[in-house]
Amino acid sequence: MRYVSYLQAGEARPGLLTETTITPIRTMSLLEFIALPPSARTAHITSERIALESVSLAAPVIPRRNIFCVGRNYLEHAKERARALGREVKLPDLPAFFTKAPGAIAAPGAQLHLQARLSSEYDFEAELAVVIGTRCKDVAEDKAMDTIFGYTCLNDVTARDLQRAHLQWFKGKSLDDCAPLGPWIVTPEEFGDPQARAIAFRLNGIEKQSSTTAQMLFPIRRLIAELSKGMTLLPGDIIATGTPEGVGFARTPPEFLRDGDTMEVEIDGIGILRNTVRIS
Amino acid sequence: MRYVSYLQAGEARPGLLTETTITPIRTMSLLEFIALPPSARTAHITSERIALESVSLAAPVIPRRNIFCVGRNYLEHAKERARALGREVKLPDLPAFFTKAPGAIAAPGAQLHLQARLSSEYDFEAELAVVIGTRCKDVAEDKAMDTIFGYTCLNDVTARDLQRAHLQWFKGKSLDDCAPLGPWIVTPEEFGDPQARAIAFRLNGIEKQSSTTAQMLFPIRRLIAELSKGMTLLPGDIIATGTPEGVGFARTPPEFLRDGDTMEVEIDGIGILRNTVRIS
Repeated sequence: MRYVSYLQAGEARPGLLTETTITPIRTMSLLEFIALPPSARTAHITSERIALESVSLAAPVIPRRNIFCVGRNYLEHAKERARALGREVKLPDLPAFFTKAPGAIAAPGAQLHLQARLSSEYDFEAELAVVIGTRCKDVAEDKAMDTIFGYTCLNDVTARDLQRAHLQWFKGKSLDDCAPLGPWIVTPEEFGDPQARAIAFRLNGIEKQSSTTAQMLFPIRRLIAELSKGMTLLPGDIIATGTPEGVGFARTPPEFLRDGDTMEVEIDGIGILRNTVRIS
Repeated sequence: MRYVSYLQAGEARPGLLTETTITPIRTMSLLEFIALPPSARTAHITSERIALESVSLAAPVIPRRNIFCVGRNYLEHAKERARALGREVKLPDLPAFFTKAPGAIAAPGAQLHLQARLSSEYDFEAELAVVIGTRCKDVAEDKAMDTIFGYTCLNDVTARDLQRAHLQWFKGKSLDDCAPLGPWIVTPEEFGDPQARAIAFRLNGIEKQSSTTAQMLFPIRRLIAELSKGMTLLPGDIIATGTPEGVGFARTPPEFLRDGDTMEVEIDGIGILRNTVRIS
């Protein structure tokens, strides 16, 4: 199944997506729906129908706290990053978790408004995002996949100069509009094996990243197990699982985002998250 | 003025504190009250009275996203940290912002439940926390203090081994119960000059940290200006402003938290945030 949030009178409303039709859900938000016990969810699905093409989509979910992110979770990206920074490749023994502010979340299709005076190195990162469905803590790896509500695409837009200058990665990752998310959430039974999905990024139609989630250094079950150690996860929490090789700052020469660019994150089994860039 | 959240039938309720008396506020939470326009706040204050000693306090506010934190914001702490890690002291040109998950927030007076199997290096950090009162972005330094609702104490409890092992600081800072906050929020007109306040930490009654907020490398107005560059701040957001020297891991020999310890953060003009530690 696929879940969306769509705009109605300026408010993000939740719905179930079937091909090109949205069935509205009665809860206040998709976050509230996800927080329901699975057995209580069906009663909130209406019998109305709305054409997908007649509405604008919102980001599928806005979590209660920051997006959890993982640095260097694809080997080839860890290598290109080390090369670009003139350092030795050092693979982490544990995931390097950091966060993105939820205020950075932008809708699928949205134009992202970025400020030229703050950064001259806006970059893209295609990522598979996991949406947690169950309150959980200290989850064993072999139970970790049961905590997942679904999957969506995230573009971890990053101001590289700020990421370096502030030492910790948070600030360069959390500017407004720097976390486009969507276009919808695909549930696990439809998505299939999350470690066997093609993931790609295109800039103005030209492929810049192309990999598969099989290349993750820490697979999703391990990320959930490590993150939940001593730390309660909540329904609607988002875990961005890292980006493969091909990002702008590690290219020769480096390629940063420019005013008017179109970005597309495509993940096999989900679809395309497309955003345009306005830098002024 | 001072604002508290107190427990009533298991729910955190907001109130205005006058010496030893709480005047309940009608909003659902202190977060909701803070989000009101200042002119609309008074109408929500009741004429009821509750004795402070008759209730348990909750953390004054739970923000909508992670707590914003700043690393190395006191010179002597930056020096002791470098010494403990065997590195050169390097002062940051810009604040090193990171975050703590809001699920880590614990009440004043609460016993903190920490897991021995996850860390053998739980440490303390006394910090002055700023609570934002106004939605704002790209705030100039000379307007920054106008965005503040008030001040409270935060103990940035840190699992040092996890902080190192995960490279980025988030995970070692975000275990459940590792962000005791309170006991109440003091408004700016009562608190006075926030860069001239004594800040101290006591472990089982013995002073371990003793400094003044005058020692901050980046004063609060600068932190708000830097953090809000390109990033919208919201009412109820919390900024922890860094810790002075004297933390456990940098002592000779290192001193980590032990089961049964009592911790006190004291800030002149606010009061004492006291918590006990249960490690099992």
